[in-house]
Amino acid sequence: MDAYKISRLRKQFENELYENVIPFWEKHSIDKKHGGFFNCLERDGRVYDTTKYVWMLGRQTWMFSKLYKDNPTQDKWREIAKHGVDFLTKHTKTPEGRNYFAVRQDGAPIQFQRKIFSECFYVMALSEYAGATGEVKYLREAQKTLQIIWDLVQNPAKLGRPQLEGQAPLQTLAIPMILLNLIEVVGDGSQAGFEHIVKECLERLQKHYNVDRKLVFENVLKDGCLYLETPAGRLLNPGHAIEAAWFLQHWAEILERQDLKTLALEMARHSHTKGWDREFGGLYYFLDSEGHEPTQLEHSMKLWWPHSEALYAHLLNHFITQSEEDEKMFDQVHAYIWKHFHDPEAPEWFGYLNREGTPTHHFKGGPFKGCFHVPRALYYCLRLLKKMEG
Amino acid sequence: MDAYKISRLRKQFENELYENVIPFWEKHSIDKKHGGFFNCLERDGRVYDTTKYVWMLGRQTWMFSKLYKDNPTQDKWREIAKHGVDFLTKHTKTPEGRNYFAVRQDGAPIQFQRKIFSECFYVMALSEYAGATGEVKYLREAQKTLQIIWDLVQNPAKLGRPQLEGQAPLQTLAIPMILLNLIEVVGDGSQAGFEHIVKECLERLQKHYNVDRKLVFENVLKDGCLYLETPAGRLLNPGHAIEAAWFLQHWAEILERQDLKTLALEMARHSHTKGWDREFGGLYYFLDSEGHEPTQLEHSMKLWWPHSEALYAHLLNHFITQSEEDEKMFDQVHAYIWKHFHDPEAPEWFGYLNREGTPTHHFKGGPFKGCFHVPRALYYCLRLLKKMEG
Repeated sequence: MDAYKISRLRKQFENELYENVIPFWEKHSIDKKHGGFFNCLERDGRVYDTTKYVWMLGRQTWMFSKLYKDNPTQDKWREIAKHGVDFLTKHTKTPEGRNYFAVRQDGAPIQFQRKIFSECFYVMALSEYAGATGEVKYLREAQKTLQIIWDLVQNPAKLGRPQLEGQAPLQTLAIPMILLNLIEVVGDGSQAGFEHIVKECLERLQKHYNVDRKLVFENVLKDGCLYLETPAGRLLNPGHAIEAAWFLQHWAEILERQDLKTLALEMARHSHTKGWDREFGGLYYFLDSEGHEPTQLEHSMKLWWPHSEALYAHLLNHFITQSEEDEKMFDQVHAYIWKHFHDPEAPEWFGYLNREGTPTHHFKGGPFKGCFHVPRALYYCLRLLKKMEG
Repeated sequence: MDAYKISRLRKQFENELYENVIPFWEKHSIDKKHGGFFNCLERDGRVYDTTKYVWMLGRQTWMFSKLYKDNPTQDKWREIAKHGVDFLTKHTKTPEGRNYFAVRQDGAPIQFQRKIFSECFYVMALSEYAGATGEVKYLREAQKTLQIIWDLVQNPAKLGRPQLEGQAPLQTLAIPMILLNLIEVVGDGSQAGFEHIVKECLERLQKHYNVDRKLVFENVLKDGCLYLETPAGRLLNPGHAIEAAWFLQHWAEILERQDLKTLALEMARHSHTKGWDREFGGLYYFLDSEGHEPTQLEHSMKLWWPHSEALYAHLLNHFITQSEEDEKMFDQVHAYIWKHFHDPEAPEWFGYLNREGTPTHHFKGGPFKGCFHVPRALYYCLRLLKKMEG
């Protein structure tokens, strides 16, 4: 990548993050009455649902903590992060130390899931906030919750889902992936006493990449063998695999492991090649490894988050390898995003496009789209671009 | 509708049901090795997943029982129905008398839902089979399960979902709707000792129609008041409302109630007008009563079942009223179906189209599409068309 291009991208990403995306959330998401953040925001920022989703509360808190940590003169970002932490700790915890999935505007609980992800984003938020402010009690709370999460991962029956004899013994990519990302946050780029979890999760994650097929499977058997009998066992989610690849690339760097670096490269490159829609562009949401149609209704749609993740993953790989292959993939994703997800008429990006690339939804925030994938990708890309400039 | 059109439609529907749709399921769905039916069938009928979904097992068993009852010389249909009943009774029941949601090809349980619908389709299957064959024991089993369902409806905490204080006290259209349909089947067109359930369900169902707004809301408060604060309270599902309308029209006829007849007419007509996509044709899957975008990713897609249900609902209303309005709605749905859902190259209909009317999936059977909405609509339409001819 030449210096001119780097500089142009740095300026574009800086503007997009600090003048477009972050101001949208600053202006529209903050609930001054009850605390916390509104997540469901129209194209123009109006609130269309006051329900607060814990994933989104945690993620937005993480994002503003991160921004504050890098810019400690920006008190407004510390205040916004505190606004999130206060609501999260006061209203989203169950009596058992778990976290709800959704709460009402005033904090009364609406929904609890038999999953670990609310807890994960709670940990992410509190750790980063502790790191940014030095308030150690939040780090302790995050570490305690991480232990609860790890216990649930090892004893999934405790999640409360019926364990039935016909269920295929599949392991899912999401678990090792999110734990690796979490520990990077909790340990601020170190293993921070969680060496055993990092080790096990790296082993588990590697089993999802099938070397012969050059595919990342969402669900595999414990030994990494494929289970091609069901749609779940054949499921590919290229954007998810590419996200996992950059999580892995960060750990390759932390642990200085060449093998992980190579694996992360292959995962990102092959998932991109497999997942790219040659007819209309963009990454498919779901594919079936054997060429069947995924049964998910949205399988051929193009979503903002796989593209956000790919933007950073390919730039990171290019930064590491200087390879043209990674640069081309980055360029392809970048062009697609600015043509289809970037909204020329209002801040923040669209979240959902049909296969052809036309928005099916125009809102900027929803139950699963908040202040996270877009600003996180822009933030990490920007950090790299500055390194490349300097 | 003139005699020529009636005759043409009768021939078309007869051919579609008996030469196209039913043979597809006869040929491809029957698992001769383990019993029961495969549900996940490619465009050409090949099995792409051997998982058996209990909704689909129950529905297909109901359909073949119904066909056999009307054509008692067709032993092959009795055998197929028995094939379903045997698998349902042997493999889909939990030790508590409930039903699983999905089982493996050999019957080992995979998934159990905290909902009542598996039980509903189990009841539907067994009742119709009992009616078709005179094997009373299956009617008794169906009646027993119906009592379990009714107990769960009245005590939803028993379903095992957490009851949380922030949850809006919404009642959902699906519950009174399916119970009314079930009792029609169990009672073979009478109330059959379930007068109390019919009465309560009719009262509940009526509350979902808002006279002032001329809209059928999926979720309302107990007194029928609207709850427009959340997407759930604003949710419209035009095809579901139209299906509810014909369930209600059947009860209007059984109970000879003019008020229900008028209500059913209004529900079907207004839902059609509200739900029809003026730009691309077809019924939207979901709408928001206040004009927001539904958060469901598939909201603007066109699905086979709302159109199948609308086909029969409008023909039934036209049969009752002789009104041109209902005939026009029927014609509109009929033309859309034959243009977009009907597959000119292979039997059975497509299930899922994008907003523009192009298939996003080409398979003919999936976890939620089986031998049900298409043949049921064709069967009921055909029954009416024969009456109209005769």
